[in-house]
Amino acid sequence: MKIQVLLTGNEIMSGDIVDSNSSMMADLFSKYGWRIARKVTVGDEMETLVEEIRSLSSNSDVLIINGGLGPTVDDLTAQAMAEASGQPLAIHPDAMAHLETWCGRRQIQINDANRKQTLLPKGCAILANETGSAVGIQMELNGCLVYATPGVPSELRWMLRHEVLPQLLKHFPSGSVETRRLLVFGSGESTLQQLISNQYPDWPDSIELGFRASMPALEVKLTTRAANSDELDTWQQRLIDDIFQDCYIANAPNSLAQATIDALYREQLHVATAESCTGGMIASQLTDIPGASQVFEAGWVTYSNAMKQSQLGVPAGDLEHFGAVSEPVARAMAEGAKRHSGADISVAVTGIAGPDGGSEQKPVGTVWIALATPEETHCYALQVPFERSMFRRWVSACCLDLIRRAALGLTLQPRYLARFQNH
Amino acid sequence: MKIQVLLTGNEIMSGDIVDSNSSMMADLFSKYGWRIARKVTVGDEMETLVEEIRSLSSNSDVLIINGGLGPTVDDLTAQAMAEASGQPLAIHPDAMAHLETWCGRRQIQINDANRKQTLLPKGCAILANETGSAVGIQMELNGCLVYATPGVPSELRWMLRHEVLPQLLKHFPSGSVETRRLLVFGSGESTLQQLISNQYPDWPDSIELGFRASMPALEVKLTTRAANSDELDTWQQRLIDDIFQDCYIANAPNSLAQATIDALYREQLHVATAESCTGGMIASQLTDIPGASQVFEAGWVTYSNAMKQSQLGVPAGDLEHFGAVSEPVARAMAEGAKRHSGADISVAVTGIAGPDGGSEQKPVGTVWIALATPEETHCYALQVPFERSMFRRWVSACCLDLIRRAALGLTLQPRYLARFQNH
Repeated sequence: MKIQVLLTGNEIMSGDIVDSNSSMMADLFSKYGWRIARKVTVGDEMETLVEEIRSLSSNSDVLIINGGLGPTVDDLTAQAMAEASGQPLAIHPDAMAHLETWCGRRQIQINDANRKQTLLPKGCAILANETGSAVGIQMELNGCLVYATPGVPSELRWMLRHEVLPQLLKHFPSGSVETRRLLVFGSGESTLQQLISNQYPDWPDSIELGFRASMPALEVKLTTRAANSDELDTWQQRLIDDIFQDCYIANAPNSLAQATIDALYREQLHVATAESCTGGMIASQLTDIPGASQVFEAGWVTYSNAMKQSQLGVPAGDLEHFGAVSEPVARAMAEGAKRHSGADISVAVTGIAGPDGGSEQKPVGTVWIALATPEETHCYALQVPFERSMFRRWVSACCLDLIRRAALGLTLQPRYLARFQNH
Repeated sequence: MKIQVLLTGNEIMSGDIVDSNSSMMADLFSKYGWRIARKVTVGDEMETLVEEIRSLSSNSDVLIINGGLGPTVDDLTAQAMAEASGQPLAIHPDAMAHLETWCGRRQIQINDANRKQTLLPKGCAILANETGSAVGIQMELNGCLVYATPGVPSELRWMLRHEVLPQLLKHFPSGSVETRRLLVFGSGESTLQQLISNQYPDWPDSIELGFRASMPALEVKLTTRAANSDELDTWQQRLIDDIFQDCYIANAPNSLAQATIDALYREQLHVATAESCTGGMIASQLTDIPGASQVFEAGWVTYSNAMKQSQLGVPAGDLEHFGAVSEPVARAMAEGAKRHSGADISVAVTGIAGPDGGSEQKPVGTVWIALATPEETHCYALQVPFERSMFRRWVSACCLDLIRRAALGLTLQPRYLARFQNH
């Protein structure tokens, strides 16, 4: 079964709107083993629309048109379908009945703009719309099943589930597909790809392997027909055991922050944060997770030296002798946060995110991280070569990972740190 | 000039990723009066890619291909371009030089996966990439200028500006277009639309008006041919004076956080934050702005009652009598943060982000905000009806706006708060 999608609308072409409707379709269809083969996006121009509907319907089994069903003059889908199929437009009695009910329930009068929405190509069927005034349109054209659907996401979602999907399931076989998304932190796409091809010359054809940068982490995706679900489990476990090891974070949709909270919760440990250059981002990511209050104790954002002293007890002498971006200061921040909050684990960051503030000895990108565990405090000097925003995101992710490792008793010298370490 | 775009990647077809790259292109091109005529999206399949490159290049002046330049086996763009143009793949010396510099700077070895990125169609030119290992590819095919660009948004952004755009400007006339994007916080799209049409029956045809939700703010976009640039200034000022008033934040790309930092800097005021339910998000957004250290003094993330007492001096009695989510506690948090940091302005938030933790008296969505100015402390009881993640973003934005208002001496009872106020 070949599915193509035609997305219409000047607002998608101009970049004012980002299309997420086609993702919604792909996501729903993938559960039935169906893929969208190709998507075409065009603006609101009659001639272009007619041409696309003709050509796409001539070489697909299913064509989903999205957008252009509204009441305004630039909503052209019904008219374009009429022209492409050589049928005249006529008031569709089912569409009119829907509109009367819809307006009646809202106690509004039917106006000309609404009435336009009942003018459909002769001989088509309608698709019910529970939440909007415009019905969808269904017709067969060039041997292809054509479905015109609304652009409003909530209306599309309902119509896909309740109208389009049941019809497709009657016409086409579905083979359900299983997917695993493995989140990995600390390994790049090209390194992993290389390791996997070296390690597994016998990687099975039935399991598709994909990568997605989910910066600063990486998502590795395994997909197979549901019949091979045991095989999928086996290969997922092999990848984790042989390749990812302690860089494996969780299966999506769980995030690194979620995995960190989960690890703390499982081990009944509490955490505190002391941030300078990350400015609260670590705390914010941790507390974004529902239930974080069970394990997150406190966070400090201490930008100035005065605050590092008064709030975290960093000795004035250390700030003076070594500067704010230094091992003794990072250590004192982490230990101060741990002591003042009574947490079991704490992390502290002090660095130079840029673009200004660097010096010859401590260039932009220099950062000290300190991780205080119940036993001892580990300090890391890193040189992180990313611009401000990515620098903050990477450093925050690295700190989350160190907390996760401390909670789970994994190595606190992960391989990936070596690349950034400043000796 | 007819521009078409070919977006490639299984991850866009499967719905794992929503394409925003083509919006970035459309947005940039629109400044020069250029529009994208049509976009085609396909997966990583060699035959399909070759066919699309051939057919799209045969009927456009410019074809931008996006994605598929990476190091992995499913990155097929270079090979597809070679096949479409009938040229063999060969190691491109410029691409190799780029890779050597790139790996050298990161002190990593070039591996086979990376080396694949230097295999380009013979006779092509490369497009520099400042931030990634893969260069872009430029060649002429069927009389069409073809540009292959990376899928990573930050790399694409750089390459569009520094490589693609200068080349296009050499080949094609630009009818330069001017755009203003006005960031507004506290007004919805339909309300503004209505106000504008009521206020200005004489709105000029030459200025196009658009809206884009940039949650939790709104972007109002004015576009015109450069010849009408004075007119644009006039109408922008009218909109601000008559309609947006103190809800106008800044012109994009400046953000609400940037406008807040700018306001503090202009007035030479320092700020501190005390966050419970927003968990550091306000501090993180403020410190994301370069130069924030000039005005940001300190932030506390005090989740537990114990930390609210010990770090911010919230009286135990208030916590006991009124609960953590209450006016006296919010007030004490803000005043404690201000006192302990010596800041001029501080903001405190305590609330119930959900999904759990609500009660009959204080349901999920209940939040107290306190704003301490040099003169006095203002407290706000709100009921914010969004789910956890949007709740945190909206509350953080609202706090940034209150700090901005306090710094600029604007009203501290903005109209939009009434909608959420709990009385």
